[in-house]
Amino acid sequence: MTVHRPGFVDVDHAGRIEDVGDATQPPPAGTDHTTQRVSGVLLPGLVNVHCHSPMTLLRGSGEDLPLLQWLEEVVWPREGRMNADDTYWGMTLACAELLRFGVTTSCEMYFYPEAVVDAVRDAGSRCVVTAAVLVAPGMEHLGGWQSQLDTAIGLGDRYAGDADPRVEVGLAAHAAYTLPIEALTGIAEAAGQRDRLLQIHVAESQHEGAELEAEHGKSVPALLEDIGFFEPRRVLAAHSVWLSDEDLAIYRRAGVAVAHCPQSNTKLASGIARVTDFLEAGIAVGLGTDGPASNNDLDLWEEARLAPLLQRARTGEATALPAEAALGLPTRGGAQALGRPDLGVLERGRWADLVRLETADAAFVPMLTDRDLLAHLVWSASSRHVRDVWVAGRRVVANGVVLTVDEERARAEVQQRAERLATG
Amino acid sequence: MTVHRPGFVDVDHAGRIEDVGDATQPPPAGTDHTTQRVSGVLLPGLVNVHCHSPMTLLRGSGEDLPLLQWLEEVVWPREGRMNADDTYWGMTLACAELLRFGVTTSCEMYFYPEAVVDAVRDAGSRCVVTAAVLVAPGMEHLGGWQSQLDTAIGLGDRYAGDADPRVEVGLAAHAAYTLPIEALTGIAEAAGQRDRLLQIHVAESQHEGAELEAEHGKSVPALLEDIGFFEPRRVLAAHSVWLSDEDLAIYRRAGVAVAHCPQSNTKLASGIARVTDFLEAGIAVGLGTDGPASNNDLDLWEEARLAPLLQRARTGEATALPAEAALGLPTRGGAQALGRPDLGVLERGRWADLVRLETADAAFVPMLTDRDLLAHLVWSASSRHVRDVWVAGRRVVANGVVLTVDEERARAEVQQRAERLATG
Repeated sequence: MTVHRPGFVDVDHAGRIEDVGDATQPPPAGTDHTTQRVSGVLLPGLVNVHCHSPMTLLRGSGEDLPLLQWLEEVVWPREGRMNADDTYWGMTLACAELLRFGVTTSCEMYFYPEAVVDAVRDAGSRCVVTAAVLVAPGMEHLGGWQSQLDTAIGLGDRYAGDADPRVEVGLAAHAAYTLPIEALTGIAEAAGQRDRLLQIHVAESQHEGAELEAEHGKSVPALLEDIGFFEPRRVLAAHSVWLSDEDLAIYRRAGVAVAHCPQSNTKLASGIARVTDFLEAGIAVGLGTDGPASNNDLDLWEEARLAPLLQRARTGEATALPAEAALGLPTRGGAQALGRPDLGVLERGRWADLVRLETADAAFVPMLTDRDLLAHLVWSASSRHVRDVWVAGRRVVANGVVLTVDEERARAEVQQRAERLATG
Repeated sequence: MTVHRPGFVDVDHAGRIEDVGDATQPPPAGTDHTTQRVSGVLLPGLVNVHCHSPMTLLRGSGEDLPLLQWLEEVVWPREGRMNADDTYWGMTLACAELLRFGVTTSCEMYFYPEAVVDAVRDAGSRCVVTAAVLVAPGMEHLGGWQSQLDTAIGLGDRYAGDADPRVEVGLAAHAAYTLPIEALTGIAEAAGQRDRLLQIHVAESQHEGAELEAEHGKSVPALLEDIGFFEPRRVLAAHSVWLSDEDLAIYRRAGVAVAHCPQSNTKLASGIARVTDFLEAGIAVGLGTDGPASNNDLDLWEEARLAPLLQRARTGEATALPAEAALGLPTRGGAQALGRPDLGVLERGRWADLVRLETADAAFVPMLTDRDLLAHLVWSASSRHVRDVWVAGRRVVANGVVLTVDEERARAEVQQRAERLATG
């Protein structure tokens, strides 16, 4: 189930859900689990399927500049100066933010993936880190694509199996238009051989792939399919704003999932993805915040509300993406998009990543039917109602306070490092 | 100024701002004022220019139904059963919500305007109440338009002058397509004679005025101009989503202001208003939440973020409605739209309606320039950062808690009344 009015949750020793039950039910006896009695409303931990969270370091910088000027004058120079420690602190502040908003899992794409993993492990959150293989001016210090890929594979090998069940390492190709074809096929082959999640940016803006499409005489999704990029079992295509019906058919038959980033896509005027069409076609869709430089926070509640708003603007249908479907996106939809059947739903065997909301608030009044609760969760609740959060059964947020991160220090580190990155 | 890092604020005995200064400045001596030393960031109290706030009673009810079915099966029957006491409690819960979000002034359009005024006075907030004159099936108990108008004029007479400086009473015609022409002219004449704010819904959905436009051979704004509806000094046209260039020129020359309701307009799939065009033409634009039955809360911070997102979706320009302009909408824009030069800006002589935000939070990190603060206020801050609120110098919210409303009772009243309204 996605929404639960507890009752209780039983969590086994490994941190997985053993049972959930309502207040009238006696919790099962036994010593092989812990029982958490909770009031209010319980949700599965939210899943942010596409973010570059360490970009907290660039939050609000160069706002309202035209895209290219912003990238060339603000983002790329600062990212070029970023080191692994900066990334660690950017990610640490992001973890505090994510956890406080009830986002227990994030799928990250950034440089210095090891620093990202370290921050996540220290903060007690959960993530899928996909190291971004990228060949771009100013980023030469990252090395060539093959060496970046080797590093990413090596990091993945270290976390393969049960090294830390909260950390999964995947692979990422930045985009078809920023990498040579042999890099794309090389990354995909590596992902396929090791069954790793494979992430890529596709069709974020309308004309980004125009040159490539002219050269190959086909759309970027068609090209990616042709070169075998969609062959790994789990492929996640971020954004996917500008897809034709044919592209959509490719996603469906190849089992490609979409990371939909509504706020980033509208803020940067990229466009509105065809989310209702994706869902109708049976394509898995999760929600992503994208990076805090372009959003500017990591609040998945905002995305869950914006997604249906934008589908209604796009289709002219006031019933597009109703509350239940919208709430499915950051929960079971996110788990599906990441190919993670161990997340996103409150049921036996899945990880006890839990979010408890305070419902003694005007946002939940009146409550006449169960349907009203779903409406309130999407349309009037927000991250401010998140009170307690658990990851694998461990409490990481209590009464709105993050227990696992020294937020004051994280803020000071990010402030000081951002000053250095800005001035060179 | 709109954003102020205090410092201090001096408030005179009447509740108006005498001086604002930064932390380095000594506050002026004297006994004719009180000095409030504050940390964090100070904004003028936000102004919600279009709402039907007592519809908290219908929040989340009949969600995701097609518009007409929702109105006919849910909204109208329940509103038909609503009495003045219901309205009072719906508005009381709304006042708590508004104040907690830092919204100190709301422009209300609803039945039982006297109950709305009573709730606002008890809650210590500020409002412009425009009684909605409406002729509609199921609403016969409200009386004919002339009798509704007489009641609204009478209420306004009682609050004319200095009866209560926190309460202004205006007039409202529900819409051109729900009232006979003589009612529209009658209401406008009454507003003009008494210099009252005159509010009306215009062009909310694409085809709502089609019949009327066919009959008169002109657009609704052109018709309203012809019959003198725009002659009063202060006219506020809510929504105004579907305006032609000619309609826009009419608004400009007649000095008509717009109440822009981005979330309501997208949720109901009405469309996206031409806000950047309005501003370019010098038309005053404020932000409205619309009623909690169609939004579903009264959080103006969400509107201030959604407005630029939608303008970017509409225009394809990533720099449309930059942060400073977006932040102007719920502050000075709202004051202009209501024709209220005593609100919306932190400066001497205006009402000391103040909102203090807590900025020791990830949403405000990093902060490298003053421009960053504006970006953070629009793109990563939210109503959860509102800590303290004053209306006319009186503290109504302290550390996030509303001092002037018994919220628990208000929630219980709304819950119980909503149950009755739902079942008849």
